Amino acid sequence: MAEKLAPREKGFSEWYVDVVLKAKLADYSDVKGCMVIRPNGYALWENMQRVLDRMFKETGHRNAYFPLLIPESFLRKEAEHVEGFAPQLAVVTHAGGKKLEEPYVIRPTSETIINSMFSRWIQSYRDLPMLLNQWANVIRWEMRTRLFLRTTEFLWQEGHTCHETDGEAEAETLRMLEVYRTFAEDYMAMPVLAGRKSESEKFAGAVRTYSIEAMMQDKKALQAGTSHNLGQNFARAFNTAFQGRDGQQHHVWQTSWGVSTRLIGGLILTHSDDAGLVVPPKLAATHVAIVVIGKGEERGPVLERAQAVAADLRRTGLSVLVDDDDTKSPGFKYYEHELTGVCLRMELGPKDLAKDQAVLVRRDDRAKVTVPLDAVVTQAQAMLDAMQASLFARAKQFRTDHTFEVNSMEEMKARADDGFLLAHWCESPACEAQVKEQTSGVTTRNRPFDLPQKPGTCVVCGQPSPGRMVFSKAY
Amino acid sequence: MAEKLAPREKGFSEWYVDVVLKAKLADYSDVKGCMVIRPNGYALWENMQRVLDRMFKETGHRNAYFPLLIPESFLRKEAEHVEGFAPQLAVVTHAGGKKLEEPYVIRPTSETIINSMFSRWIQSYRDLPMLLNQWANVIRWEMRTRLFLRTTEFLWQEGHTCHETDGEAEAETLRMLEVYRTFAEDYMAMPVLAGRKSESEKFAGAVRTYSIEAMMQDKKALQAGTSHNLGQNFARAFNTAFQGRDGQQHHVWQTSWGVSTRLIGGLILTHSDDAGLVVPPKLAATHVAIVVIGKGEERGPVLERAQAVAADLRRTGLSVLVDDDDTKSPGFKYYEHELTGVCLRMELGPKDLAKDQAVLVRRDDRAKVTVPLDAVVTQAQAMLDAMQASLFARAKQFRTDHTFEVNSMEEMKARADDGFLLAHWCESPACEAQVKEQTSGVTTRNRPFDLPQKPGTCVVCGQPSPGRMVFSKAY
Repeated sequence: MAEKLAPREKGFSEWYVDVVLKAKLADYSDVKGCMVIRPNGYALWENMQRVLDRMFKETGHRNAYFPLLIPESFLRKEAEHVEGFAPQLAVVTHAGGKKLEEPYVIRPTSETIINSMFSRWIQSYRDLPMLLNQWANVIRWEMRTRLFLRTTEFLWQEGHTCHETDGEAEAETLRMLEVYRTFAEDYMAMPVLAGRKSESEKFAGAVRTYSIEAMMQDKKALQAGTSHNLGQNFARAFNTAFQGRDGQQHHVWQTSWGVSTRLIGGLILTHSDDAGLVVPPKLAATHVAIVVIGKGEERGPVLERAQAVAADLRRTGLSVLVDDDDTKSPGFKYYEHELTGVCLRMELGPKDLAKDQAVLVRRDDRAKVTVPLDAVVTQAQAMLDAMQASLFARAKQFRTDHTFEVNSMEEMKARADDGFLLAHWCESPACEAQVKEQTSGVTTRNRPFDLPQKPGTCVVCGQPSPGRMVFSKAY
Repeated sequence: MAEKLAPREKGFSEWYVDVVLKAKLADYSDVKGCMVIRPNGYALWENMQRVLDRMFKETGHRNAYFPLLIPESFLRKEAEHVEGFAPQLAVVTHAGGKKLEEPYVIRPTSETIINSMFSRWIQSYRDLPMLLNQWANVIRWEMRTRLFLRTTEFLWQEGHTCHETDGEAEAETLRMLEVYRTFAEDYMAMPVLAGRKSESEKFAGAVRTYSIEAMMQDKKALQAGTSHNLGQNFARAFNTAFQGRDGQQHHVWQTSWGVSTRLIGGLILTHSDDAGLVVPPKLAATHVAIVVIGKGEERGPVLERAQAVAADLRRTGLSVLVDDDDTKSPGFKYYEHELTGVCLRMELGPKDLAKDQAVLVRRDDRAKVTVPLDAVVTQAQAMLDAMQASLFARAKQFRTDHTFEVNSMEEMKARADDGFLLAHWCESPACEAQVKEQTSGVTTRNRPFDLPQKPGTCVVCGQPSPGRMVFSKAY
């Protein structure tokens, strides 16, 4: 019999690692800070990619692919950018048996190499907007890593766009943030706060950074996606310019935006439980596992009916596994399907068949219903829809229950581990740093669009604040 | 007016580069030997990926992702492997601001890093077969590069499988070669010879390598995909072992197989012409471009009808572009759609509309038909099917016309640039090297399964030959 997972109560981090390893989502590798994404985990990424890629294309973007290696000098062209990324670079100094004249860095992000191409491709306002996206791997040398959440190498998409005006760039930045919000909430069933990051938390080289921030089950925040208005910073550095409608040369206005395999970590930390992975049906690799029960001669007719039901379910677009392995007990199979996040289990044995019925069990709340076999398809779809909605509602309630207004540093310290803290802040980096230091790690997350802004006084220094900001410990 | 492409007659290489650059399939980058895949080129790769990924899954494979970086010592564990790849490695010596204790190489292929994981995951014959695939980028430092055909970084898929017996591994190797053959012929409309490579041309570390070889329009061969039976070479190096049904420990039997963005080069070199890109409909990014003709008031009703036809075509799964840009002349648009490989052009003007008809023009043979508007969907589908079949038939006839039996070194030299040369060869690497040297580059391609094998004598040394081998100059 398989060993149990470490329960969340005993240690949230241990539980998380246990889920990832035992559900075979990922594994540690021999490369420092890099993980291997195993098929069960990669299937989640494929489903996320499929949905996001469609959303990007529906908003007019096309995919392209730029080199993994970037000449080191390119990064230095944008001062803030290189300052932000220099400590995290992996550097190729030798290739083809020789020392390179100029080292290459492995992309930590691609603004620089992409601008080197934009500057060749864009001549006129007629070439704008240019709306590209890239699915790629990147490397950022990290000191402390966590499976999916922070790894030296990760997979992501990075959108890169060029516009004629600042206004269009800002609209694009917000449009893509909204795509991320929709994806997080409607597909991942993970409620997020969409808003603007502080100056010290913005992307190195951006004018403004927006993020979506989610609350995990341990009440920590996860920055789940970012969208940057780059202004003309990279355009100036690479002279990405166009002849405008006025006949004059102008630098383009740019954006970039990305989400990564970190989302898989967010999915796990939002919904999973002590029995293992829980996946919202819209992203699940397997929607229904039909467990065939029965011995000897009884088994044949059960299997036959199970396969017929599976075919019916598949016709509606569901992914179905018929589990007919007779070397394992039903109980062991239930355990395994729960561990790996199958949304619905259907139990079918000779007695059920005699009564023309089956048992359906939902993964998240274990709700169990007995349904006539000819109603399985309808019932399964209804249960999956209910599960998707319920996961979102539960996570949203959890966030509501763990969001607090705090009005002093004392309260901030006392509530440091309690969730999202809404506090007035004067917007100075010094006060932000003070909070972080005095609370062992509470940082500004973002200023949510949906949080009404009323003036107040900074919890640190007492100076005027434009409105409450979300503070929290974060992954 | 756009400038014309360099015609094939004037210089095949120049024409190829011209097609790639002017159709905006790819561009040169500032990174030595690396290209940028632009949206028009990447769309072809996405279509190839979609088909191949489905074929891999239908044959039981699942996707995973392994680290980009490989500890240098891993490569050295398999002697032939490191010897083959050492000259092409890019090496990361510094990361996170420090010199690394052990350098990492950027994967040129992933047998070693994947075996380091296989050896942990596989314990028993019950864990077999293990059938994985990875979509990834790899780097092989190349001296001379060509857009798509040979680039320092390229995108590919690499399948990696483990089996209980040698027989199962060989069956898998051949099964995946057959998947590649089917893909090349049925989707790319590119006829290929499937067969076994010579000892000197096999993959570094393999026991046997099989390939599919296509003939390009300049009569050179393109190795378009390879499938390797790795035997137990990597399993021994990494101790990837399992407890067998006999209770004893055994090393697993492995395969690996891959195709890359090189296929896009093959697609271009097989079908394209002096007007630009020609793409078989099954892989085309745009099946039909509807060019709206007419000025002033006449234009509205034409556009309306064009959009209705487009909607009808899209419902059958086709990708349709309605080109209503009135700043460009119809002639300029025809030129552009031909350049970028749109399969069918539909011309619709006020006179056509009055007669309830449209003109359809096929990209490959420029066949032009006038059809009633309500027959456009049926006619377009028929023309696309015919185009797919015709591209394959024409390429196959071309190969037949440029395949020769040669029976002496003199003939081999005289025919060195004429195409595929079927010659007897004693299988010694020395004679193979002789041919290459005396012909300025004719090499063995493979021993096709479909080429009847009758004994003869080697064209170089006169020793016994088991049967004719395919020789050719190659990309």
